[in-house]
Amino acid sequence: MFDIQAIIQRALAEDLGPGDITSSTTVALHSESKAEFLAKEDFILAGLDVARETFRQVDPKVCFFSYAKDGDEVKNGDVFACLDGPARSLLQGERVALNFLQRLSGIATHTRRFVEVLQGTAAAVVDTRKTTPGLRVLEKYAVRVGGGRNHRFNLADGILIKENHILAAGGITAAVASARKMAPHTLKIEIETQTLAEVREALEAGADIILLDNMPLEMVREAVKEIQGRALVEASGGVALDTVRPLAEAGVDFISVGALTHSSEAVDISLLFSGIV
Amino acid sequence: MFDIQAIIQRALAEDLGPGDITSSTTVALHSESKAEFLAKEDFILAGLDVARETFRQVDPKVCFFSYAKDGDEVKNGDVFACLDGPARSLLQGERVALNFLQRLSGIATHTRRFVEVLQGTAAAVVDTRKTTPGLRVLEKYAVRVGGGRNHRFNLADGILIKENHILAAGGITAAVASARKMAPHTLKIEIETQTLAEVREALEAGADIILLDNMPLEMVREAVKEIQGRALVEASGGVALDTVRPLAEAGVDFISVGALTHSSEAVDISLLFSGIV
Amino acid sequence: MFDIQAIIQRALAEDLGPGDITSSTTVALHSESKAEFLAKEDFILAGLDVARETFRQVDPKVCFFSYAKDGDEVKNGDVFACLDGPARSLLQGERVALNFLQRLSGIATHTRRFVEVLQGTAAAVVDTRKTTPGLRVLEKYAVRVGGGRNHRFNLADGILIKENHILAAGGITAAVASARKMAPHTLKIEIETQTLAEVREALEAGADIILLDNMPLEMVREAVKEIQGRALVEASGGVALDTVRPLAEAGVDFISVGALTHSSEAVDISLLFSGIV
Amino acid sequence: MFDIQAIIQRALAEDLGPGDITSSTTVALHSESKAEFLAKEDFILAGLDVARETFRQVDPKVCFFSYAKDGDEVKNGDVFACLDGPARSLLQGERVALNFLQRLSGIATHTRRFVEVLQGTAAAVVDTRKTTPGLRVLEKYAVRVGGGRNHRFNLADGILIKENHILAAGGITAAVASARKMAPHTLKIEIETQTLAEVREALEAGADIILLDNMPLEMVREAVKEIQGRALVEASGGVALDTVRPLAEAGVDFISVGALTHSSEAVDISLLFSGIV
Amino acid sequence: MFDIQAIIQRALAEDLGPGDITSSTTVALHSESKAEFLAKEDFILAGLDVARETFRQVDPKVCFFSYAKDGDEVKNGDVFACLDGPARSLLQGERVALNFLQRLSGIATHTRRFVEVLQGTAAAVVDTRKTTPGLRVLEKYAVRVGGGRNHRFNLADGILIKENHILAAGGITAAVASARKMAPHTLKIEIETQTLAEVREALEAGADIILLDNMPLEMVREAVKEIQGRALVEASGGVALDTVRPLAEAGVDFISVGALTHSSEAVDISLLFSGIV
Amino acid sequence: MFDIQAIIQRALAEDLGPGDITSSTTVALHSESKAEFLAKEDFILAGLDVARETFRQVDPKVCFFSYAKDGDEVKNGDVFACLDGPARSLLQGERVALNFLQRLSGIATHTRRFVEVLQGTAAAVVDTRKTTPGLRVLEKYAVRVGGGRNHRFNLADGILIKENHILAAGGITAAVASARKMAPHTLKIEIETQTLAEVREALEAGADIILLDNMPLEMVREAVKEIQGRALVEASGGVALDTVRPLAEAGVDFISVGALTHSSEAVDISLLFSGIV
Repeated sequence: MFDIQAIIQRALAEDLGPGDITSSTTVALHSESKAEFLAKEDFILAGLDVARETFRQVDPKVCFFSYAKDGDEVKNGDVFACLDGPARSLLQGERVALNFLQRLSGIATHTRRFVEVLQGTAAAVVDTRKTTPGLRVLEKYAVRVGGGRNHRFNLADGILIKENHILAAGGITAAVASARKMAPHTLKIEIETQTLAEVREALEAGADIILLDNMPLEMVREAVKEIQGRALVEASGGVALDTVRPLAEAGVDFISVGALTHSSEAVDISLLFSGIV
Repeated sequence: MFDIQAIIQRALAEDLGPGDITSSTTVALHSESKAEFLAKEDFILAGLDVARETFRQVDPKVCFFSYAKDGDEVKNGDVFACLDGPARSLLQGERVALNFLQRLSGIATHTRRFVEVLQGTAAAVVDTRKTTPGLRVLEKYAVRVGGGRNHRFNLADGILIKENHILAAGGITAAVASARKMAPHTLKIEIETQTLAEVREALEAGADIILLDNMPLEMVREAVKEIQGRALVEASGGVALDTVRPLAEAGVDFISVGALTHSSEAVDISLLFSGIV
Repeated sequence: MFDIQAIIQRALAEDLGPGDITSSTTVALHSESKAEFLAKEDFILAGLDVARETFRQVDPKVCFFSYAKDGDEVKNGDVFACLDGPARSLLQGERVALNFLQRLSGIATHTRRFVEVLQGTAAAVVDTRKTTPGLRVLEKYAVRVGGGRNHRFNLADGILIKENHILAAGGITAAVASARKMAPHTLKIEIETQTLAEVREALEAGADIILLDNMPLEMVREAVKEIQGRALVEASGGVALDTVRPLAEAGVDFISVGALTHSSEAVDISLLFSGIV
Repeated sequence: MFDIQAIIQRALAEDLGPGDITSSTTVALHSESKAEFLAKEDFILAGLDVARETFRQVDPKVCFFSYAKDGDEVKNGDVFACLDGPARSLLQGERVALNFLQRLSGIATHTRRFVEVLQGTAAAVVDTRKTTPGLRVLEKYAVRVGGGRNHRFNLADGILIKENHILAAGGITAAVASARKMAPHTLKIEIETQTLAEVREALEAGADIILLDNMPLEMVREAVKEIQGRALVEASGGVALDTVRPLAEAGVDFISVGALTHSSEAVDISLLFSGIV
Repeated sequence: MFDIQAIIQRALAEDLGPGDITSSTTVALHSESKAEFLAKEDFILAGLDVARETFRQVDPKVCFFSYAKDGDEVKNGDVFACLDGPARSLLQGERVALNFLQRLSGIATHTRRFVEVLQGTAAAVVDTRKTTPGLRVLEKYAVRVGGGRNHRFNLADGILIKENHILAAGGITAAVASARKMAPHTLKIEIETQTLAEVREALEAGADIILLDNMPLEMVREAVKEIQGRALVEASGGVALDTVRPLAEAGVDFISVGALTHSSEAVDISLLFSGIV
Repeated sequence: MFDIQAIIQRALAEDLGPGDITSSTTVALHSESKAEFLAKEDFILAGLDVARETFRQVDPKVCFFSYAKDGDEVKNGDVFACLDGPARSLLQGERVALNFLQRLSGIATHTRRFVEVLQGTAAAVVDTRKTTPGLRVLEKYAVRVGGGRNHRFNLADGILIKENHILAAGGITAAVASARKMAPHTLKIEIETQTLAEVREALEAGADIILLDNMPLEMVREAVKEIQGRALVEASGGVALDTVRPLAEAGVDFISVGALTHSSEAVDISLLFSGIV
């Protein structure tokens, strides 16, 4: 909450600088206007509250109405929200609100495509820490809006023992034991594996989640068989829309996809003004 | 400078949270390691100083060496930088440094493609305010690294009179006169036009820059003829790699492309550890 | 907006420290009072909204009414605003509100005197970056209230090539070319000159604005003739109320005066309390 | 210390904005330069450490040497400090460093004049809370540099019972008693008086300091006689250089002067560059 | 005020992290609830406004009613305040509000015990700077609520010359003289003494307050006799509830007790929910 | 790391205010001194790095040497660290460094007593969220130093379904199912129970951790039997040093104790100066 207000405040400060010179020299101080958010393509909407808060911070006198809610499928040509208020204020919040809406809806839309492809399987798509610096809380929200699930938020709220930790700890067994002994007991222990031997060692070490990293599909299938539900199974590594379903059908529980947040395209949205007086 | 240090600090705080539990429970306190930044595809490098500063903030004892500089063309398989220092510190800075490098190099690479397509024309590709909230200063830097040019940074350091300002001011002539009378004399006046009639009115009003917004190619050609060098000419509106060259050949001076910053894909970079002791 | 709220918050924190001990030990918690802002000399009013926001931050229960607006000429003895609310809150906001009002009105009044002296000429008085650290946005506002115009706000929103840049770039022509090639095309290029030869070189280099720095009046006249409207002309250098008019009559467009912000005297304003209960 | 670093950081952020476009487009990245701080009039120097810290924040590679120290009398034409370092960094810190030095030296110089006029009397000149919002810690320092003394820093570190507190408390006696009972015992109690009757009541109430506010000179003399050293005596109210000495000769201990901080003129200092390479 | 809002905001950010996962996955978004603050032991209440502000920051829709006020004696089993609002918001503010209330009431209760023991003597119990880092303004408030008085808030608003200052200054007389000459005249001068000889020297040097540090009771009695009301007398040094009264009866004016803030136990308070819908 | 630096910076700002008046008026600017940290009782040391960073922030010229490390048992009379540097700087950091050391060592010492009492059992003592607002990261560190373990850090990095969540979700089974479906799969699910029936339902619902809240010892024993290692078992509720061992012997895995952080007494430490010159 505070984070999000602060993110928006920084975005506005960044975009306004010491003042909107164009509006203050061409638009009368008390001029009023209306404006509509118009979808220029089909997408999953995400970020309405961020847009609302953006205009609230610019000027509490701006009214923000929405005709849809986050998670809705918006169609090209739909008006999904509108504004009413001082013209200068609408102009000053416009770019920031659109930047948020377009990015977050882009992520939600991208995620939704994965969810659709996985329909009928038991696997869920999850995000990663490959997010835009400073926007993680919003981007992970957009993933949930799109129907995906969240992996750990940061290095403190999840244990993911990777290759380098294993090397440093002196092996999988030692690493798991060490984490179990010292980390908060409220966190599961996830461990990254590259081979079936590692999968077996992780299982025996009592890992709660086994990450199959960049494994060939066939090896994934064998790993799942080996694990037999004794640990949760996550797959990762350059997964794309056209490669995700076989992984799910191989029986993994979670598939983590960095591209959800690091390479989603912004969706196209316009803010149309009317009735400036 | 301060901005960038603060951006990195927020990114690290976001990613570390109250502490890196995995590393602190599996990697010994005084363990040392080396690591190499490895390109997993061809790209234009951008963000080396950001990555360096990231590790400096995590731990001043980390040494950061680079074998390339921003703007260089890095090839798949190249090692372009390396690290040496406390293993926990390398692990703690890894994700944030990569998130920055991958995004900024993605933007620089995307920009460079536009620059290459425009080779031999007089037009320059410029960015917009469609940047990631909070990262504008870095993203605009990445555009420059890629060979593009920057449009105004925020609403205070450029005058761009758009359709809605024109409506509010009572026409193009009035809007330009009003801006000229009140805005700092150090700023040029740019005005958005949709028709040739508007282009003519803008010219007569004395606009310094005329923005041709979403005009058909033919109309762009006529506008350029009309203007005859008496104002700078900028074109914008959904410009892509395959539509940009004809615009340049029509004689415009600048072509602004929002996708440079809002829809560039992250490039693929790995950090490979070795010699953890 | 955010800047100004933050400036006021810092000023209040600075003045209140951990608490107003005098009021909290001598004035009852629920005591109410009224108070009037009284002009003790003639001046141009500036900063009403800053004073209003100051009391709003101290205590939203304070009512602030104004009988004048920024830019009005207030006479010695005029009451131009009044307060009604908790006595402790009025006492706690008093000094900060007065410090802002007295300084900003001082700047507006000083500026207005220049504007009056320039009456009937085509020249405008403009401010500089010689402002009080941390208060630039307010002081430049006060200059506008007084009828002056603003020069660039900071190093990013205007190009002013000075002597040292010229030296570093290898001459006026090279400096202008270099700025033209790399800087945002939305900014005009201004260049500082000390001699007529430099004026000529600047003109040929295509400078948009030529700054005549500390030139004797006669040289200013010749420079203006030379330039013939092909560039805007700005004069600067120790300009005072008694030396400004001849400069304007010499035909320059802008005269920049550092003293507007670095050496204006505070005007005299009192806050008179009444009816403490 | 922290305050001052933060003040300087905000001043630099304000002045640099997203970047120094002129320098970065006209001065080569690795260009080096020297520069000298030159006094353009006689003054008391104050703010050297602020200027040093300003350049340190811009770029730790800048060397700052000083040939004088705060409190020294600098003569027109003196070079009192010099710089050596990256040319862009010198240019970027220049304006902020000068803005601080000119303002603080202005205050120190103004204060010194009062000190000189008071030479041979037992009275000290003290500052007030009429300081520039956000710069109090620096301005009070400049007063000390000039030879003046500081009054309380904020509302928490001194008790000054004014007319309105007296009204609210139900009289001088009640106000002093109330403050004595509740305020920290480490603070003296000062009370504002306008008449001799009030002076007497304050004395009997046991005030530690009696402020004679805007009293005619004759009344000041009588008040001092009345008090007979049983309390410290402070005089205030529109005191100027030509009215301050008789007050001191009347026997008051302290004379507080708001103009020291709210209306001192900036002194004239230049930064001369040489040897840009 | 600002300080306190910021303290609460940091406490909430610390406790919420990127979001309350338990509530957001088990409690419906629009679920409403009531809750009561229940005393689980007898104590002096302190911190109601802090608790109120905590919930206001979490969610302005939460209603907070109180049946008591700070300083009241609350009995085991008393309900002293209640909440009504969105269930998630109550759950999110619960821990932080309780952490503040329990700590501050603990301090007020501890202080009150000292006040009761001192009943009938002329001595007051005062706090020290041995407070929890970051919470001083609240903890000193809780001491006042408990009936204690405050010593100086920080190093700037009181002069306390300790052993080491005396050594550095070259003796008590020199130290007092030096402080008198340079420090704001609004502050009393307090000096720490360990022997009767030092007490005498302090008296002669004109100290306003004499601190008897860790003196045996008998020496305290002699010191008080020696001082004879010519200075305020403060005693300190490991004072506990069972040793405080004899000190007071020895005639000191103030007894400072670090344990008030560094070693008070939290009182026991529960927040009972009801009627979640 | 950043958190801790910021916590220390705020503590110093709080304690220094606008400046240390006593030292700056009695101790010469270039005076040097040494000082030793002396234990005045036996305790477990915690906070050395915090003390070191405190002095580093005050003045990088202060040298800080330690003869012990966090977790060591320090005896009454031991000197465990010493300082060497500018006398003013030592005096300015003294109180803040001691406030941190005394509090953190108090927590570590309190925790160690629990650990000792639990010696030979399989149970671990864990902390709670009942920490001092703003200091959680340090206090949880001190618990680890004392040999305790950490429960979740904040509401985002652990799932603890309490009574009110259960009510809101419509029962234990529904609450666990809901959390499992939506929360990050990296977190274990802990659920609070008051009766054996609830324990059974929690087990069947698949809870990872079962919290036995305020259960009588006999019921704890039965619960442990019932659970038979199918979930981790945590006990809580007013646990003290004399009641903790039977709980452990009943077979629970974790015992959470709020008093570790909310009611530990500060240990007694002095900073002894010597050789001020």
